[in-house]
Amino acid sequence: MTAPTTAAGGDDFDQSARDAVYRAMFTRRDVRSHFVAGELDDAVLARLLTAAHHAPSVGYMQPWNFIVIRDGERRRQVRDLFLAAREQELPAIEAERQALYRKLKLEGICESSLNLCVTCDRERSRNSPLGRWHNPEMDLYSTVCAVQNFWLAARAEGVGVGWVSIIEADALKRLLSIPDHVTPIAYLCVGRVSEFAPRPDLEAHGWGQRLPLPDLVMSETFHGAGEAPLKSAIARLCGASRPTR
Amino acid sequence: MTAPTTAAGGDDFDQSARDAVYRAMFTRRDVRSHFVAGELDDAVLARLLTAAHHAPSVGYMQPWNFIVIRDGERRRQVRDLFLAAREQELPAIEAERQALYRKLKLEGICESSLNLCVTCDRERSRNSPLGRWHNPEMDLYSTVCAVQNFWLAARAEGVGVGWVSIIEADALKRLLSIPDHVTPIAYLCVGRVSEFAPRPDLEAHGWGQRLPLPDLVMSETFHGAGEAPLKSAIARLCGASRPTR
Repeated sequence: MTAPTTAAGGDDFDQSARDAVYRAMFTRRDVRSHFVAGELDDAVLARLLTAAHHAPSVGYMQPWNFIVIRDGERRRQVRDLFLAAREQELPAIEAERQALYRKLKLEGICESSLNLCVTCDRERSRNSPLGRWHNPEMDLYSTVCAVQNFWLAARAEGVGVGWVSIIEADALKRLLSIPDHVTPIAYLCVGRVSEFAPRPDLEAHGWGQRLPLPDLVMSETFHGAGEAPLKSAIARLCGASRPTR
Repeated sequence: MTAPTTAAGGDDFDQSARDAVYRAMFTRRDVRSHFVAGELDDAVLARLLTAAHHAPSVGYMQPWNFIVIRDGERRRQVRDLFLAAREQELPAIEAERQALYRKLKLEGICESSLNLCVTCDRERSRNSPLGRWHNPEMDLYSTVCAVQNFWLAARAEGVGVGWVSIIEADALKRLLSIPDHVTPIAYLCVGRVSEFAPRPDLEAHGWGQRLPLPDLVMSETFHGAGEAPLKSAIARLCGASRPTR
């Protein structure tokens, strides 16, 4: 781990360093099924948290906190919240997909090494909310950037991360004594894994497919058809990677 | 750029690859001042968009779209929105910081190579909102993960990115013909840069300082004091990096 360093132009990442960054992104998975027993070294967890802490934040607000949860009984209570929430969500799913939904493994709360709740303190910059007068949700987005840094650093360290979003936020706040002005953003399961699956679970199980990226790129306005040379460049990349996704 | 590849255990990143991932995070900057003239290659932009498209998304929803904005007149209109919004935000800033606020450069809309508006289609999974029944904002968070992937990939490519959050979302939606059910998440200035500053601009200009990470880590609940060994491990990392931050 290299400490934050001095100024640099744009040529300080060589090809292998660039490849490493892309590889972390392409092989990152939302891990549910492949956690293995064992603790995570404090040194590793410290590096992951430092990565999260170097996320961008609106007005340099750094609104995040990180609650490390290891206690087995507390985790079982969180899992109970998940199970209840899943039952509540089920009727919102299309009838013909409910059987598949029930089969999906959507959390690894108890079998991961630890859980991490990443929160956002909405009041941390209350006297000078630079960048939040028009868009007060920017602090939530900053916290998500911290989660994504954590997730990518974890991938590079061989550590799996799964984000549990099927949970009732108010119940979670009560269980973790989170104050009113603090919003839980992500509840993460974190731990060593036996493997990172070659494809996202929801793709492997037929829930969805990766959308064609050229269709998602517009030009100038939301209805702009997109630039043909850029779309071709994207299609070349996607074509190259399709066999292995 | 390596295409998405096969399964792997946790040991597939060697030390230099891990370092590259951390380096992208530690040296990423919210760029406003260091854009230089020149186009971005379509091949580079295609890689950055592919990185964004490999972000995690709730229920594999992939709710994002990417509007590439190059037209000078449109950019001037966006910049006018920024200037108006900054005037509106100013009174919300503490009186003694308003002079500093006025001096900060907070956007590079016209001098960057291009602008990119990253949006979130709230209805893309409307029939099967896996993971969104309790937390409908999860699609917004997924889109932020895409922004952070784009930002980190850009850093590795030597491309600067700045997020403009001082802007009125409804006015931006009108300007870019964004439909009602689509939310603009990030308006990014993207381009080649002369340098990446050694420290965040807002730190260099005295707006704020990086918070001590050990103070932000709790254990078991929001009021848990945090684990001493973990806090020591973090302090060792922070101490090592302090001289260069």
